[in-house]
Amino acid sequence: MAEVCADDSAWSRGWATTLDNARILLAPQLPRGLEGALKKALAGRGGPAVHRYCSQPAAPTGQPIVCIGSTPPPALLQDGSSLVWFHSSNAGVDAVLRAGLPSGVLLTRTVGRMGERIAQFVLGWLLSECQRVPDHLAQQRGRRWQRLPSELAAGQLAVVYGTGAIGARIGHALGVNGIRAVGVSRTGRQSDAFDDVLTPDRAGEVLARARWVINALPLTAATAQFFGDPLLRKLNGATFVNVGRGATVDMAALDRALHGGQVRAAVLDVLAEEPAAPDDACWSLPRTTITSHSAGITHDEDVVHDFLGCWEDLRGGAARPSLAVRPARGY
Amino acid sequence: MAEVCADDSAWSRGWATTLDNARILLAPQLPRGLEGALKKALAGRGGPAVHRYCSQPAAPTGQPIVCIGSTPPPALLQDGSSLVWFHSSNAGVDAVLRAGLPSGVLLTRTVGRMGERIAQFVLGWLLSECQRVPDHLAQQRGRRWQRLPSELAAGQLAVVYGTGAIGARIGHALGVNGIRAVGVSRTGRQSDAFDDVLTPDRAGEVLARARWVINALPLTAATAQFFGDPLLRKLNGATFVNVGRGATVDMAALDRALHGGQVRAAVLDVLAEEPAAPDDACWSLPRTTITSHSAGITHDEDVVHDFLGCWEDLRGGAARPSLAVRPARGY
Repeated sequence: MAEVCADDSAWSRGWATTLDNARILLAPQLPRGLEGALKKALAGRGGPAVHRYCSQPAAPTGQPIVCIGSTPPPALLQDGSSLVWFHSSNAGVDAVLRAGLPSGVLLTRTVGRMGERIAQFVLGWLLSECQRVPDHLAQQRGRRWQRLPSELAAGQLAVVYGTGAIGARIGHALGVNGIRAVGVSRTGRQSDAFDDVLTPDRAGEVLARARWVINALPLTAATAQFFGDPLLRKLNGATFVNVGRGATVDMAALDRALHGGQVRAAVLDVLAEEPAAPDDACWSLPRTTITSHSAGITHDEDVVHDFLGCWEDLRGGAARPSLAVRPARGY
Repeated sequence: MAEVCADDSAWSRGWATTLDNARILLAPQLPRGLEGALKKALAGRGGPAVHRYCSQPAAPTGQPIVCIGSTPPPALLQDGSSLVWFHSSNAGVDAVLRAGLPSGVLLTRTVGRMGERIAQFVLGWLLSECQRVPDHLAQQRGRRWQRLPSELAAGQLAVVYGTGAIGARIGHALGVNGIRAVGVSRTGRQSDAFDDVLTPDRAGEVLARARWVINALPLTAATAQFFGDPLLRKLNGATFVNVGRGATVDMAALDRALHGGQVRAAVLDVLAEEPAAPDDACWSLPRTTITSHSAGITHDEDVVHDFLGCWEDLRGGAARPSLAVRPARGY
């Protein structure tokens, strides 16, 4: 079924006309290479010129604005703005939604090879733990020869919270390496990427047996502080990996679970407040590595590829690009 | 075709009778747990008792001796010894062959889940490099937040020297993670575990494009110092991982290639002389991690499982257990 939108939105005006007349604005933080690649690709499609805005983008009254960046500049969110489409250069769009995108503005996001990148991040850290890479590096620094038995990841259990595009890539990557992957999602709908998918209320039993718990949840009203005392207390020595959103974790509860041993170790790619200052308490969590939001860094080609995919969808008459965000759901 | 052996060897005497009358000797270095598991398993099969020897094992004249350990004790190698079968608790048997096993003595070895363990070691270190685990650990120690772009392992090329049981597990483990794995073997015989298998003389072209070169070669007369200047000079920034045998690498040539940039980094699980003392030059190789022969540590259950497998093969009338070594080949 087609989406029903307000009469004055770009949806109902027809995207082909809108895009032909649009002004495309790139956030100043985006790299030069991305600008060049995007200009070239749009010129090849007979599309409009691409401009980079500074702090206060302005446009002739009525000209539709398409903006690409991590969050929309405040001027484009005010009444009377002609912003019709914001494409997020990131996969996570909670900051965009918090900024208050006017209704009727299309929001799309970059996924790119992010799922694949994040899945390799997760697998890399799991295997690094099994192979005791940190211990070997310390021995190398100390010129010390000592055999360190490794642990076979195959046959062990990982519980992955979030079974969407990214969670599914993680489940698949673990599965092909012989790790049993159980997904947890709101609906509990089965997926080929997992040995099983459970709803959160049914996950207690697998949490107690899990060697790893992976968080790949988006940040929504339902997931804020989701990993708190009640959940973490169910773990029985699992290593916790967060590649979702920082604010889905109650850091005080994680600290307690690390000290209590319910959580064996933690790899935190994301925090509620980033970047973490040197005196941030997160650096003092025991047996924890903070990886500075590096798991799914979007590469220039990912943003260009996904923006152009949305562009083609819209030019081709689709009511809704496949990478469009559903604001009510939050991703 | 059946193996042709000297008339006075155990092969022609009939293994069932030999094993019924044998004395089973365990090397003193083997762990207690292994001794208990083996005694229990053999008792369950109506097999002979298991003894642990100290320095100089002796046996009544004529009683066949089956010995399990890393190398046979010298007394069992002398003229008049009634050693009929030596089972190596390791996969590598070059030290056993160097010790001079009399002809007619069966030599078998432990492979266990070693291939799987070594494959996970290789994959773990490859992904750890791609995910920049060492850099992240250093940032964690310095309480420093800095995004570090990772590298996708998928789509890149690994060249694996050695396509036997262990090499094939490595090729398979890389392949399921999207890494293109090309094997190199004496015969160049194709294998399902690899995208392609080449003979050494045809490997030059792939070496220049390889992101990783993995050494899983046994030590034989043909492989000693195999990784020397001529081969290493063909690399173009590959990371070198040695899970084969230390003496297959010319360490001075590796040092030159690391300094010259042909080798980007190295992970050396094995050295020609082990253990390495703190003042050993190996610790000073640039961008190198020595992992103390930890990749394929044999677990007690592996030795028991593989010894019993050979035992069953022989009791069942097999001329040759599947884990028997071919001394002329060296593995």
